[in-house]
Amino acid sequence: MTIHTDTIEIRTTGKGLFEITDRVEEVVQRSVITTGLCSVFIFHTSASLIITENADPSARSDVERWFERLAPENDPLYTHTAEGPDDMPSHLRAAVTKTSETVHVDGGSLTLGTWQGLFLFEHRSRPHNRRIRVRVMGETS
Amino acid sequence: MTIHTDTIEIRTTGKGLFEITDRVEEVVQRSVITTGLCSVFIFHTSASLIITENADPSARSDVERWFERLAPENDPLYTHTAEGPDDMPSHLRAAVTKTSETVHVDGGSLTLGTWQGLFLFEHRSRPHNRRIRVRVMGETS
Amino acid sequence: MTIHTDTIEIRTTGKGLFEITDRVEEVVQRSVITTGLCSVFIFHTSASLIITENADPSARSDVERWFERLAPENDPLYTHTAEGPDDMPSHLRAAVTKTSETVHVDGGSLTLGTWQGLFLFEHRSRPHNRRIRVRVMGETS
Repeated sequence: MTIHTDTIEIRTTGKGLFEITDRVEEVVQRSVITTGLCSVFIFHTSASLIITENADPSARSDVERWFERLAPENDPLYTHTAEGPDDMPSHLRAAVTKTSETVHVDGGSLTLGTWQGLFLFEHRSRPHNRRIRVRVMGETS
Repeated sequence: MTIHTDTIEIRTTGKGLFEITDRVEEVVQRSVITTGLCSVFIFHTSASLIITENADPSARSDVERWFERLAPENDPLYTHTAEGPDDMPSHLRAAVTKTSETVHVDGGSLTLGTWQGLFLFEHRSRPHNRRIRVRVMGETS
Repeated sequence: MTIHTDTIEIRTTGKGLFEITDRVEEVVQRSVITTGLCSVFIFHTSASLIITENADPSARSDVERWFERLAPENDPLYTHTAEGPDDMPSHLRAAVTKTSETVHVDGGSLTLGTWQGLFLFEHRSRPHNRRIRVRVMGETS
């Protein structure tokens, strides 16, 4: 059983979905692990992970706008407003998406469905450097 | 450390929760792994996984109807409408439930709480064949 | 490869977020595992797990009140009402948060971002004893 770990940094350009499938796949390749689990963890509470359709950009933009409405800015419910109008919505959108995601590794690659992509979901308005840890555990052939 | 993997196929009959606990348990039995982790991954973006109450059917139907309202069909927010009115709600409902779920294996079986069942959550109106990968990693006694 | 498992019990005092980071960290310390994965699983469908901001109490109370509104008590949609007005909202709030969470272990400790804490999210009004299983899999140095 082998463990391989890399931290990847993603520079976001403000709110939205940023596909990271290829970046995570690169780590899997470097690990030389053929069969196992790939655990992806994001070190933030105002950005999160999501696996969703990666073919049609209109699906992605609908996802972004739906979450914008689900947890809107300037909601009178919020008391935690000191860090800006986009801060509290960020924590809520992160809470209902993922901080960690587990993808299987087979034949030395991530095993995803035809239409699946792994995305970093940036919830803050300003660009941020986001840190994501990728850990692969499994067997080398 | 042993790794055992099976793909299971579930034929859904349209929108709703389909319990898959027994199907996943069968894979755990076949693995002969006594202590470890069972990672369940669904290869779709319009169907997802959820662990919820498996005793009372009324709880399940409330879950189904609540998600129907949370991400309704024909919402004017959607621009991604080419694949039908149930497509975009599917991606949204999948985004706020699970693509992967991890359950512990002890004594050669899944360890779930008294009222917990693992469900495939079909979000499309028509029947679909859904592929789910079950991977068990751990020790054989 | 070593596997270490402990069950922790948390006594809640009714609805709200209860930080369990230190309790899970204690299990990691006991495991003597330096590099690996920590899988946390809650055995309930009316309480769940969430990783969110642990610095400012106002962020936590906003999270609590937002979920209270997202899946409110006494919603006419519910038919599953026999176990009290807080039961069905509990299953819904659990469904959109986490039953299991995976955190990386490095240098013998949980690896979390600066502002991240792991929380038990109690969804029932009355105090409950909640059981959480913590399993650490990895290498001892």
